[in-house]
Amino acid sequence: MKVLKESVVAIVGMGLMGGSLALALRSRGACKKILAVERKSDALLVLAPLLADDVSAELDLVAGADVIVLATPVKTIIKLLPHIGRIAQKGAVIIDVGSTKREIIKAMEELPIWLEPVGGHPMCGKEELGLAAAEASLYENSVFALVPLERTSAEALDLAKSLVTSIGARPLLLEPKRHDWAVAATSHLPYLLASTLMATASDLSRSDDVVQRLAGPGMRDTSRLAASDTAMMMDILMTNRDMIIPLLHSTLRQMEKIATWIESEDWELLQTFLNDSAKQRRTSFHERSG
Amino acid sequence: MKVLKESVVAIVGMGLMGGSLALALRSRGACKKILAVERKSDALLVLAPLLADDVSAELDLVAGADVIVLATPVKTIIKLLPHIGRIAQKGAVIIDVGSTKREIIKAMEELPIWLEPVGGHPMCGKEELGLAAAEASLYENSVFALVPLERTSAEALDLAKSLVTSIGARPLLLEPKRHDWAVAATSHLPYLLASTLMATASDLSRSDDVVQRLAGPGMRDTSRLAASDTAMMMDILMTNRDMIIPLLHSTLRQMEKIATWIESEDWELLQTFLNDSAKQRRTSFHERSG
Repeated sequence: MKVLKESVVAIVGMGLMGGSLALALRSRGACKKILAVERKSDALLVLAPLLADDVSAELDLVAGADVIVLATPVKTIIKLLPHIGRIAQKGAVIIDVGSTKREIIKAMEELPIWLEPVGGHPMCGKEELGLAAAEASLYENSVFALVPLERTSAEALDLAKSLVTSIGARPLLLEPKRHDWAVAATSHLPYLLASTLMATASDLSRSDDVVQRLAGPGMRDTSRLAASDTAMMMDILMTNRDMIIPLLHSTLRQMEKIATWIESEDWELLQTFLNDSAKQRRTSFHERSG
Repeated sequence: MKVLKESVVAIVGMGLMGGSLALALRSRGACKKILAVERKSDALLVLAPLLADDVSAELDLVAGADVIVLATPVKTIIKLLPHIGRIAQKGAVIIDVGSTKREIIKAMEELPIWLEPVGGHPMCGKEELGLAAAEASLYENSVFALVPLERTSAEALDLAKSLVTSIGARPLLLEPKRHDWAVAATSHLPYLLASTLMATASDLSRSDDVVQRLAGPGMRDTSRLAASDTAMMMDILMTNRDMIIPLLHSTLRQMEKIATWIESEDWELLQTFLNDSAKQRRTSFHERSG
């Protein structure tokens, strides 16, 4: 298997994640050549030639690649994999950047045995989406989960790791179930809470727009994830339903407790709870604690 | 009544808000003199003389001020007001920066008739607290709610407005009830949701610390408010209990709906809801929409 420096890397999907990956690889001279597949033929494609050596709307372009990175929504990744399996060259390493891993890994298991699939999930992103928002530093200092299959060879995993480190991220090896369980809490629950907050606030805002005028930085941060791409999020929620349901229920129980404490003026119980959350946020879950 | 430029401004409480106010007034040369009262005699007090012309641990310092700004937690403001009433000079304008307004306004109504109280609440802040985190630009471009009493004279309100604009903020006149109702949604509910999210995530994290390692920027933003000062937040929750309770219940009902949609795979209903929240977040509640 070639080293990354000598490899042709194909990126399927030139959105925020794919575009930033291309920029990061190119600016660091990390690989031999970059191929980009993007079906949208809109103005953004004008930018793509600046990031890649070859750009196409056709998936067949990936046939010439040593490493294929799938940077589309989760269900599109699952749908593309059989096609990739028919055209990828022998020994090609197939990585994805989807936010849930069990269903993608299951689809990767169906790939022909001469291919080398590895699941991936970078823990970075931002509110703005699409190629126009891409930046070379997006992956820097973030954790990049790698989820190998049983069949993944040591060489393929090494190549995946060097892809991750070459863009400034830190690889973290995980099993698919452990990954999906953890991101339900760190990503999908925050998204649903942000959306709920936004719904509650905008309901009130319809009767008096002062609600909107009094929204400060706290409200903006807590609700930021509600602006995520909903089509992308639906794929994630549908493929991680079983992990999300119990978390929603324990969150509901906790919020019911808070409501009861405030109603019955059990201020000490409320403060003990808030102190514990504050301590956790300031220590274990502080910036860049990963 | 003097104009701001010729006024002596006393700030009680040199934390993030009081310290930033002193820095903003001083850097813009907005008033004649700044007096600072801070009871803590720790290392931070070393900084205070850089921000104010006179610093004291004793409240009596405010006797020489034309404008007195109370920048302490809500219950401390309420406790200090009777003392302020006994020592403030005739015609002094008394403003506060507390996050709830009804109880403070009630306490302000008890002040002697020769004083000029106006309630205030700047919609800005940050995670780091205390004088060390203060900055001259904290108030810039943010909304600063002003809540006059029935007795507040036009001149006193004008002076309060010029204080607000002199530090780069935008005054927004509100009645106490309307203010407390709106901030329950834009500030207190986000805080309780962030704390609940942090509690749920740290519960899981105790059984497997990968939860913490997979916390990306989305988790950090959504949970940021959980790190707020809990003593300060308790004052706020206690003085806005009646506005917060119905909001918590409608949030609970909304979350129960979401859980039911996911359980029964009612994906269309879920997506319609998420689309609406995303649209609200991207338009009405976008950055600096106030």
